[in-house]
Amino acid sequence: MPTKIKSTVGWIGAGRMGYEMAGRLARGGADVLVWNRTKEKAEPLKKHGAKVADEVAELASRDIVFCMVSTWKDVKEVVGNLLKGKSKPKLLVECSSISLEGSAELREMLEKKGIQYLAAPVSGNAKVIKAGRLSFVCSGPRKSFEQALPFLKMIAPGASYVGEGELARIVKICHNVFLGVVTQSLAEITILAQKAGVPRHAFLEFMNQSVMGSTFTRYKAPAFVNLDFKVTFTPHLLRKDMDLGLDAGRRFEVPMPLASATRDLIQSMIGQGWTEQDFATLLLQQAEAAGIKLKPENVEVGDGLS
Amino acid sequence: MPTKIKSTVGWIGAGRMGYEMAGRLARGGADVLVWNRTKEKAEPLKKHGAKVADEVAELASRDIVFCMVSTWKDVKEVVGNLLKGKSKPKLLVECSSISLEGSAELREMLEKKGIQYLAAPVSGNAKVIKAGRLSFVCSGPRKSFEQALPFLKMIAPGASYVGEGELARIVKICHNVFLGVVTQSLAEITILAQKAGVPRHAFLEFMNQSVMGSTFTRYKAPAFVNLDFKVTFTPHLLRKDMDLGLDAGRRFEVPMPLASATRDLIQSMIGQGWTEQDFATLLLQQAEAAGIKLKPENVEVGDGLS
Amino acid sequence: MPTKIKSTVGWIGAGRMGYEMAGRLARGGADVLVWNRTKEKAEPLKKHGAKVADEVAELASRDIVFCMVSTWKDVKEVVGNLLKGKSKPKLLVECSSISLEGSAELREMLEKKGIQYLAAPVSGNAKVIKAGRLSFVCSGPRKSFEQALPFLKMIAPGASYVGEGELARIVKICHNVFLGVVTQSLAEITILAQKAGVPRHAFLEFMNQSVMGSTFTRYKAPAFVNLDFKVTFTPHLLRKDMDLGLDAGRRFEVPMPLASATRDLIQSMIGQGWTEQDFATLLLQQAEAAGIKLKPENVEVGDGLS
Amino acid sequence: MPTKIKSTVGWIGAGRMGYEMAGRLARGGADVLVWNRTKEKAEPLKKHGAKVADEVAELASRDIVFCMVSTWKDVKEVVGNLLKGKSKPKLLVECSSISLEGSAELREMLEKKGIQYLAAPVSGNAKVIKAGRLSFVCSGPRKSFEQALPFLKMIAPGASYVGEGELARIVKICHNVFLGVVTQSLAEITILAQKAGVPRHAFLEFMNQSVMGSTFTRYKAPAFVNLDFKVTFTPHLLRKDMDLGLDAGRRFEVPMPLASATRDLIQSMIGQGWTEQDFATLLLQQAEAAGIKLKPENVEVGDGLS
Repeated sequence: MPTKIKSTVGWIGAGRMGYEMAGRLARGGADVLVWNRTKEKAEPLKKHGAKVADEVAELASRDIVFCMVSTWKDVKEVVGNLLKGKSKPKLLVECSSISLEGSAELREMLEKKGIQYLAAPVSGNAKVIKAGRLSFVCSGPRKSFEQALPFLKMIAPGASYVGEGELARIVKICHNVFLGVVTQSLAEITILAQKAGVPRHAFLEFMNQSVMGSTFTRYKAPAFVNLDFKVTFTPHLLRKDMDLGLDAGRRFEVPMPLASATRDLIQSMIGQGWTEQDFATLLLQQAEAAGIKLKPENVEVGDGLS
Repeated sequence: MPTKIKSTVGWIGAGRMGYEMAGRLARGGADVLVWNRTKEKAEPLKKHGAKVADEVAELASRDIVFCMVSTWKDVKEVVGNLLKGKSKPKLLVECSSISLEGSAELREMLEKKGIQYLAAPVSGNAKVIKAGRLSFVCSGPRKSFEQALPFLKMIAPGASYVGEGELARIVKICHNVFLGVVTQSLAEITILAQKAGVPRHAFLEFMNQSVMGSTFTRYKAPAFVNLDFKVTFTPHLLRKDMDLGLDAGRRFEVPMPLASATRDLIQSMIGQGWTEQDFATLLLQQAEAAGIKLKPENVEVGDGLS
Repeated sequence: MPTKIKSTVGWIGAGRMGYEMAGRLARGGADVLVWNRTKEKAEPLKKHGAKVADEVAELASRDIVFCMVSTWKDVKEVVGNLLKGKSKPKLLVECSSISLEGSAELREMLEKKGIQYLAAPVSGNAKVIKAGRLSFVCSGPRKSFEQALPFLKMIAPGASYVGEGELARIVKICHNVFLGVVTQSLAEITILAQKAGVPRHAFLEFMNQSVMGSTFTRYKAPAFVNLDFKVTFTPHLLRKDMDLGLDAGRRFEVPMPLASATRDLIQSMIGQGWTEQDFATLLLQQAEAAGIKLKPENVEVGDGLS
Repeated sequence: MPTKIKSTVGWIGAGRMGYEMAGRLARGGADVLVWNRTKEKAEPLKKHGAKVADEVAELASRDIVFCMVSTWKDVKEVVGNLLKGKSKPKLLVECSSISLEGSAELREMLEKKGIQYLAAPVSGNAKVIKAGRLSFVCSGPRKSFEQALPFLKMIAPGASYVGEGELARIVKICHNVFLGVVTQSLAEITILAQKAGVPRHAFLEFMNQSVMGSTFTRYKAPAFVNLDFKVTFTPHLLRKDMDLGLDAGRRFEVPMPLASATRDLIQSMIGQGWTEQDFATLLLQQAEAAGIKLKPENVEVGDGLS
């Protein structure tokens, strides 16, 4: 293990999540060279000990390169640029939320060049990373997972290996399907409790400290209580992930009754015009279906992270 | 607060949960007198500092009496016996899972005798109590809640006050509806991941350390992985609670699409003969609907409690 | 059979449906004496050969008395008044849409007086009766059914006997559950076809002449095409019948997934304020969930009745 | 109109449905030349006045060619063979159940050759055709529809024009989605009525003569009553059509809650092994979910067709 920590690391992407992840690596003592499309965004990482590259191709001579960008299109482009020259890393760890098909295409592309590839999507957002509560789900060669592990551990307390190939992508989709169902169910019972006379903050305080409470239900509490629906994940993106889950259900012949019902409720929400805010507006749709208009409770509620 | 700790306490019920709760009170330094139908079950509490009564009526002279028995029928009977004599406690804290109607009847009965009443159902089971992770949800006069709080805190880290009257009972129902929906959704995605090639233990390890993981999903993992369906809560009991939730949905005019769908799946499970094991056999029904027969994975999995 | 036609008939209720039914009896040659709370409404039946009574008690000496009023409360009151005197009919045929419990109470009341009782709710509305397309579903002693049959046949082409006791009431509930599900499904596919580019009138013309078309889908076509939602059955009444169906499902342990989902969609419709028009506004709710606002197509569409 | 009847007709496909359709055309006085892969199956059509071809290419000189085969693959092959030579019909009427994409591909292929194309799928099966109750839903150029109409009318009482392009294919999908939902709902209420004490034949007799009865519910009655599940349409085919419907729902952003729920129940039926019989085995699955095993009632029930 100690030898591995000596591996040099390249980091692609200093967006909201990538910035936090690279920062944790640097502070953990890793030798990190960061590249970001807009270089200025990466500069502050220097004070944590990271170096910043001008061109992504500079990262090609690093032992391990991590990638955390937005879409499959971005991944394809930056990895293409990374490998334009003669150098190449031993291992690429791809953390963005890309499709199974994109992931398989990337694997093929890298295998041809003799580069190991670990699919490693995450559960959490920027605040979760800051709070030291991120988790990775990884698939690919087990050896690659073990190679990456010391670095994954610097970033997140949890890193699970689930098998070969693109399995981590399926698991991430399952995770997001669960997130959709849990949010809709929480909306149903929160509105029920409210109409029965329990303020939302009191109801959620209990739920969140009960055995049913999760990091997720806790960090959604401020949105449910004070109706702050600043977007973390849009209804369209959630619908896309539910559809990916239902597609997988078809392919593997698994009925998904709760996922299907939730998917249709998300579609209804979109149809009724809730498209620009956070998907947690499922609460507002649920309230209207119950004949009430919600008001912010203006009660300070913790998100369990800060 | 210190004065309150001097209040004397009576405890009715030393079943699986009541025993653990009374034990925590005694070890916490409270002056507790316990009564249980079968006295022998309560005897070992003496070594934690509790006293044990022969008759429930002996508890009537205590300041606060807690009640943790099985059903509303039991509550009604023991409280009747408790109050047969001239003495009466100042406050009764009722922790069993009883209906809203039972709770209201009890309140009326106690009010007539000038006894304060706090409804205080819990989230968790005996193992959760032992692990110090129980939580109470309370309703009734706020003063009663504050009076009970020092003792509740000895038993459980979390105690939420949600309002007047029987509101805590509605919240407990909402909690159990959520538990049903979460279990069914977890069954759907676990079977999907499995058919895609991810072993259940690997899938749940990730889910449980992800932001979606809860104390509940963690302590259900052994059942899902190794198919140990020793009953913690029967399908019939879960169906009853889902029906209570749907009844509340009707009464307050709140549509509950995921709760309804889950309720019908529980009914199907019962119809197909899964009645004597834990409700987590929802996983088995889901597997059959996906065309597979599950086998125990025989992997040691933590429950997050012990 | 010919002797039976000689039986004298009493008819209680000359509302929209009762008027048409009594008219068919009279024109069919039956000796009918009609009573209605507001006598004027019954008067025009004279020109079809019916007699009109001043007091409901006058009907007590008739061989068979039919009852077609609004609610169980009305049934109870008029039957009470009918039987105040010494005379009593041999058979009462109750056609209103009353609950199973009401029906059982009525049976008990009549049995004590030695009066036979046939439960005989119907499928159809006033226009359906006029078009000669009504049908009865009957339960009670088979002998009573046979006695009533010649008269039922004058009113409606179809009269089914389903068994003893209150079974006809359950069947009527099943019928209305089906009606709810069919309407919601029709709303889903009509909006889908419309967004794909097929005008509603063209779509429904095909559906109605296809093997899937029913008298019901045909007479709902004008509402779906031209958005005339003059009430025939309110959302609240349909929700009530869905709930009766779900209650029966609980009692007999039959899961009802489509009925449950439809019930919740009706609740959502009510929550969003569609309460005063016909339940076919399920189409409008479906359109909004699909992101469109409907306009009347202003195309003349037959209802298959007139 | 009379001139059009003089058009010469080619008919491709003498399977169960094609045979009946071509027979009606011939008996109606049309000049029909039939081709079928297995020529012997077409021979008996001669006694109705049809001619029988050896090669499909012989049909190319006919004015209008109808096509009624099994799958898109068959359509593509036979139309390819039909147009191998120099002759070509003016109009092709395609009646098989093919996908929207196949239909669009065919249109493009025919347009390049200057052949008009009418998509004309049907509602019904061989028995429905024989009973003179088939209906067509057509899309393409309106002129083509009018040209085909006299012949369509010889085959079926109903022929609806729904618009340009492939719209008829969407309508057919909607029709089949409705068929799935109606069957599941009928299964729910039939089992409910049965557990309440109403024999299935009595229940369905009433439903089928009620305003909710359709040609479809009537011809499914023998299966529901006597459990004869000889396949008319397999569970896999119905699942495929439900999926096509849900795909269209996604594309046009229309939530389809009842279609989704039904789709998952069909998947469960398939998962549990009901794959080789008629999709009406949804009744058997519903019975098991309600805790009962069905037995044939052995009561003669009409199918409303013969």
